Amino acid sequence: MPFNVTQKLIKDHLIFGEMTPGMEIGLRVDQTLTQDATGTMVMLELEAMGLDYAKTEASAQYVDHNLIQVDSKNPDDHLFLQSATKRFGLYYSRPGNGVSHPVHMQRLAKPGKTLLGSDSHTCANGCMGMLAMGAGGIDVAMAIAGEPFYVKMPKVWGIKLTGELPDWVSAKDVIFELLRRHDVKGGVGCVMEYYGPGLKHLSAMDRHVIANMGAELGATGTVFPSDQEIKRFLKEQNRGDDWTELKADSGAVYDIEEEVNLSELEPLVAKPSSPGNVVPVKEIAGEPIYQSYVGSSANPGYRDFAIAAEIVKGKLIADGISFDINPTSRQMLTDLVNEGHIANLLQAGARLHQAGCNGCIGMGQAPATGRNSLRTTPRNFPGRSGTKEDSVYLCSPETAAASALTGVITDPRTLGMAYPKVRYPKRPTIDINLLDAPLAPEQARQVELHKGPNIASIPEMDELPDQLELPVLLKMGDNISTDEILAGGARVLPYRSNLPEISKFTFEIIDDKYYDRSMAILGQGGHAVVGGYNYGQGSSREHAALAPRFLGLRVALVKDFARIHWQNLVNFGILPVTFASEEDYQKISQGDVLHFQDLRNKIQQGNEFSITIAGKSEPVFVRHALSGRQIEMMLKGGLINWVKDRQEKTARQ
Amino acid sequence: MPFNVTQKLIKDHLIFGEMTPGMEIGLRVDQTLTQDATGTMVMLELEAMGLDYAKTEASAQYVDHNLIQVDSKNPDDHLFLQSATKRFGLYYSRPGNGVSHPVHMQRLAKPGKTLLGSDSHTCANGCMGMLAMGAGGIDVAMAIAGEPFYVKMPKVWGIKLTGELPDWVSAKDVIFELLRRHDVKGGVGCVMEYYGPGLKHLSAMDRHVIANMGAELGATGTVFPSDQEIKRFLKEQNRGDDWTELKADSGAVYDIEEEVNLSELEPLVAKPSSPGNVVPVKEIAGEPIYQSYVGSSANPGYRDFAIAAEIVKGKLIADGISFDINPTSRQMLTDLVNEGHIANLLQAGARLHQAGCNGCIGMGQAPATGRNSLRTTPRNFPGRSGTKEDSVYLCSPETAAASALTGVITDPRTLGMAYPKVRYPKRPTIDINLLDAPLAPEQARQVELHKGPNIASIPEMDELPDQLELPVLLKMGDNISTDEILAGGARVLPYRSNLPEISKFTFEIIDDKYYDRSMAILGQGGHAVVGGYNYGQGSSREHAALAPRFLGLRVALVKDFARIHWQNLVNFGILPVTFASEEDYQKISQGDVLHFQDLRNKIQQGNEFSITIAGKSEPVFVRHALSGRQIEMMLKGGLINWVKDRQEKTARQ
Repeated sequence: MPFNVTQKLIKDHLIFGEMTPGMEIGLRVDQTLTQDATGTMVMLELEAMGLDYAKTEASAQYVDHNLIQVDSKNPDDHLFLQSATKRFGLYYSRPGNGVSHPVHMQRLAKPGKTLLGSDSHTCANGCMGMLAMGAGGIDVAMAIAGEPFYVKMPKVWGIKLTGELPDWVSAKDVIFELLRRHDVKGGVGCVMEYYGPGLKHLSAMDRHVIANMGAELGATGTVFPSDQEIKRFLKEQNRGDDWTELKADSGAVYDIEEEVNLSELEPLVAKPSSPGNVVPVKEIAGEPIYQSYVGSSANPGYRDFAIAAEIVKGKLIADGISFDINPTSRQMLTDLVNEGHIANLLQAGARLHQAGCNGCIGMGQAPATGRNSLRTTPRNFPGRSGTKEDSVYLCSPETAAASALTGVITDPRTLGMAYPKVRYPKRPTIDINLLDAPLAPEQARQVELHKGPNIASIPEMDELPDQLELPVLLKMGDNISTDEILAGGARVLPYRSNLPEISKFTFEIIDDKYYDRSMAILGQGGHAVVGGYNYGQGSSREHAALAPRFLGLRVALVKDFARIHWQNLVNFGILPVTFASEEDYQKISQGDVLHFQDLRNKIQQGNEFSITIAGKSEPVFVRHALSGRQIEMMLKGGLINWVKDRQEKTARQ
Repeated sequence: MPFNVTQKLIKDHLIFGEMTPGMEIGLRVDQTLTQDATGTMVMLELEAMGLDYAKTEASAQYVDHNLIQVDSKNPDDHLFLQSATKRFGLYYSRPGNGVSHPVHMQRLAKPGKTLLGSDSHTCANGCMGMLAMGAGGIDVAMAIAGEPFYVKMPKVWGIKLTGELPDWVSAKDVIFELLRRHDVKGGVGCVMEYYGPGLKHLSAMDRHVIANMGAELGATGTVFPSDQEIKRFLKEQNRGDDWTELKADSGAVYDIEEEVNLSELEPLVAKPSSPGNVVPVKEIAGEPIYQSYVGSSANPGYRDFAIAAEIVKGKLIADGISFDINPTSRQMLTDLVNEGHIANLLQAGARLHQAGCNGCIGMGQAPATGRNSLRTTPRNFPGRSGTKEDSVYLCSPETAAASALTGVITDPRTLGMAYPKVRYPKRPTIDINLLDAPLAPEQARQVELHKGPNIASIPEMDELPDQLELPVLLKMGDNISTDEILAGGARVLPYRSNLPEISKFTFEIIDDKYYDRSMAILGQGGHAVVGGYNYGQGSSREHAALAPRFLGLRVALVKDFARIHWQNLVNFGILPVTFASEEDYQKISQGDVLHFQDLRNKIQQGNEFSITIAGKSEPVFVRHALSGRQIEMMLKGGLINWVKDRQEKTARQ
C-alpha cells in the first residue's frame, strides 16, 4: 500500500496502536525541544522521575522566551536550565542564540525523525521532513525518559501546491490563505502535508513559515517531504550527512485533498484578534499603525529580514512608528549584519532587539493603548501583545516593511518600486559553538542542579490511598477554564518554576479563599472539588493540575471534562470522576465531606463505583474513564511516580 | 584677571549673583535635555505653566530609559513625549536612537554653551567645552521656559593630566583613579576641570567617559576645554561650524589643584556596591562572574565596543557567561555593524540589545541571585541592577571583555595577547533624520498633547490661603528620606506620569493609612505633617513633593530639612517651616489641628511667626527660610503658578 510522508513517519515510529484515524497510537520520540517558559518544569519533572540520562537521540533546551531580566528570577532560571541540561544529557542553547524552532532546524533537525516539543509551534520543524508536534511539558519529560508519545492517529490532509508566488507575495501568505479558507479549528485532528510542483519555489525556511502556523489551524502537525531543497539546506549548515530523502510513495492518497495555486495568491493580513480573521491587505489599506514588527518563528528566515531591509533601504520610516526588528537566531543575525541588511534597517529607523521570542509572546514591545500593531508573528489573540484590548494585525515581512514606510497598512504592491531581489551570503555563518553539547553520562552524573531561590523541586507525591475522606473545598459551575484554575500573565508566570509560590494563585479568580482553606487542612488527607460541564477547558498548562495537587486536591468530581485537562489531572495523580447521574451534582454542597472506600480495588474493577456523603444515607455513583495504563499511574500517585518506578526496574535489570 | 574654562562659561551666562564660591548664582541656560523617565513630568509641568514655545537655543527630549514595553504604559509615554516635543518646540529623539548623553554630544552639543538636563549624568557633555549640569525636572522645565538656573557658585578643581595611557588602560581608569583618591563625595560643590598635556591623547569620547562619572564624585559639573580634538569630532559629525575654541587663559588658577599622570595608571575596578570602592583589577583577579556587560553612558564610544570586539574576536566567551552588549547610539551601532565589530561580538557569544540605557538603570539584564556582574556602567549602588542584594563591579571595556573570555575577573594585561589597535570607519555614519527637529511655532500651536490612560495632567494648584486649619495627618521621627515619602522601583515608576496614581504610594512605607486619611478630607483646606531632623534626605525626586501636595499637604513642620527636598517643597507650594524651639516638637501630636492666621502677611514680614494648636492656649513659634523670590512663589501656590503668571505678563507686553 502506498504511503504518504506522514504515514511513513508514523509507521516508522509506531510502538503502540493501529494507524486508524482517531485511535490512540504510541510513537517513539527521536528528538525533543523545550523552551525556558515550559522547560524549567520539565527539568523539575525529570528530577522528580529520577532520570539518569536522556534516552532520546537529541534533546535540546532553548532559552528564548524569558530574556527580559528585570530581577533575578529569569537569570536564575537560565542557570538552572543550564545545570539541568548538563545533568540529564541535553543540548543547551544559551540566551542570545535565538528562537528554538529556527535554531533547532539549523542545528539538529533531521529528515525522517520525530520531534516532540513543549511549545505549540514545534510543528515548524515539519518543514524538514519530520513529524514534529507540540505537547505538554510532562509529555516531553516522558519522551526524554524514553517513553512513547500517545496521540490520536491523525487524518492526513494533503495540500497540493501548484504555480509560483507572484512578486510581493511570500510564504506567510500561503498559510494565511489556508487560515482564510479553514479558520483556526480547521486542522484539528489532522496533519497538514504539503506536496506538488509548487514546492520547488519554496525554500526550507519558507516551508518553516508555513509549517509553523499549522498550529494556528489547530493541526496535530505539518509535514513537508525531504527533497533536494532540504539537502541543499543541510549542506549549507555543514550537515549534509544528516540528509535522507523522504517523499510520498507514488499513488499515495490523503484523507482530505486540497490545492493551492501559488500564482493566484495576493498579500493577506489577519485582522484582530484571531489568526483566522484573514482578508486581502488591499481591503484594509490605509489603516494607521503604531508599530511594524518583523521577526518571530512565523517569519524567522534570513530572507524575511533581508526583504524588509531592501524595501526600507535608503528611506525613512514614517513619523512615530515603532519599527521593531526581532532577529530569530544569532547565526542569521550575523549573516544579516555581514550582508549590510541590519545597517539598512537601522538607518531607516528600526529598533534592533536581541534574538529571541520577545514581543511575540508579550515579553516587551507592547503597543500603545488603542493603537494598531502590525506584526509578522503567528498569533494576535487579545492581550497577547501585553497591552490590554490591543489591536494586532498579522502579515508578511513585505507588508510590514511597506507599512513602516507609509505609517498605514499598505499593500506592498502599491509602493511603486520593483520587487527587490534578496542577496544571500556566499558562505552563511554556522554557529555551532554556542549550542552546548550534552555531557557524557559519567560527567553528567557529577553535575548538581543549580537552584536559585525561585526554583523549587516538585514535592514527592504519595500513592492513591484506599480510603479517602475529602471535604469539598470548592463547588463550581460549568465551563471552568484552566485560566480560572491557574491564571497566566506577567503576575503569575515568573513563578513557573516554583510550585509552592505559583499554587497561591490557584482558583484565585473564582474564590480567593480557596488557597487559605486548602492550606488549613494540608496534610490531613486531601480535599475534593466539584464542577459542572466542560471542566478545565482552554490552555493546556499543566500547572492547572500540578498546583491544586500540591494543595491536596485528590479528586475532581464534575459533569464532564475538557480533554487535555483531564489528561493533566491523571498525569498528576488527581482522580477525575464524573457523576453517573448528573442530577447528583445538586446533592453535594461546598463543605460536604465525600467518603471513598476500597478505592484502589474499585477503580481497577470497573468504571463505576459508589461514594457516600457524610451525614447522608444515599450513595452517589461516579464514573472514571481511565485506561489500564492510566489506572496503574493513578495507583502510584501519578505519572512521575510511575516512570520513576519503571526507571528503577530497568536499572535493576 | 585670567579665567579658567569653567569661570569663562559661568561669566558668559551669569544673570544673577556674584562668582564667589558658595554664593547662589543664576545662569542663563542655552540647551536642555530630558529623558523619558523624568521627561514626562517636565512636559506636564510645561503644560501646567502654559508655556507657548521653548525659549532655549536647543532642547531635546530623549527616549532611552523605559524601552521595555511589557504593557501599554511605556509606549503611551513615548507618544505623549513625542506630541509634547512637537507642541513646545523641542527635539524628539525616537526610541532606538540611543542614550541621551552620547546622542546629544553627536548632534547638539556646542562648545561655550550651558546645558541643563533632568538626568544626573548630564555633566557628560562637559567634554565638549560646555557647562553641563544635572538638575530636577522642574528646574529643567523652568530653563525651557527661559528662566535662569540657580545654583551655588562652584569651586573649580583643576586636574592636570600628564603622560599617556599605557596599553590596556583607558579613559574609564582615569575617572576610577579620581574616585579611588576622593570617593563619592569628593567633588561636592566643585566643577572638575581637566587640562594639561595628557589631554591630546584623549579623544572627545574618552573625555565623555571621564566627564560622565563626575556625577559619581558628587561634582556640580565636569569641564574640558574645546580644542582641536573637539574641532575634529564636530567636523566628523558634519557640524564643523559649531566649533569654537575655548581654553583657560594663560595664568588661570584653580581653587583646588591636582595632577594625574596617565602613564602611571593601571586597570582599575570599583567593587560592590559603590563607585568609590576602587582597587586595581589585579587585586581581585580570579573572582568568578555571571555577567560581563559593555555599554552605557559611562563607556558609550565606538572605541569602547570596538576594543571589546577585537579582544574576543575569533574566541568564545566562557561557559555560562551572559555577555551583554548595550549599544549607546544608533549611529555608533551602524558603524560597529559596518566595521565587522558586531559580527565578532555575536560570534564570540554576545547578547546584542537595543540601543538605550537598559540594565544600567535596572531595566532588564539583571544578574542571577548571588552572582557577580561586571559592568562598564557608572553606578553599582545596591539593587540598582534589578537584583536584590546584587554584587556589581564597574570596570573598563578592556577588563569586561577579558573577563568574559575567562569567566573570572581578569586584568586584561594578563590575557597574553597584543593590545589590539582599533579600526575606525573611514566615513562615520551620521544619523540626523531620526532626531526629529522642532516644529516652527505656528505649527507647534496646532499640536494637541497625546495622553494615554496612564498620563494625567498636573492639577491646578491654588494660592497660599491667608488662614489655614490643618490637621496633622502624620507625625514622623528623624531622617525621613524621600524614598520613604515616595518610593522608587518598578512597582511605582510606571506611574511617573500619573500624579493621582503615584500619590497612592505617598508615605506608604511609614504609614499605609496616610493616603486614606488624606483622601477623606481632600478639598477641606488641606493638612500638615510634622517631622524631626534631616527631613527629606536622599534622592532628589520631585514626586516626593508633588504627590503629597496633590493629596492636600500645605505645611511641613520639622526640626530641619535636607536641602533638595526643601527646595522641592517650595517649588510645589508646600510651606516648609521649622520649630523656633525644637522642644515644641513634643507639644504636637498626630491628629492635632494647627491654626495659621494672617499667613500671607506673616511670611512676608519676617522669618518667624506664631501658630496655635486647637485646644491649647500657648502659641508655637515657627520659622521659614524663604528668599524674596521664593516668598513670591509660595504666595502664588508654587513655581508653576509663578512662571505661568510671568508668561502671561510677558505675553501682554
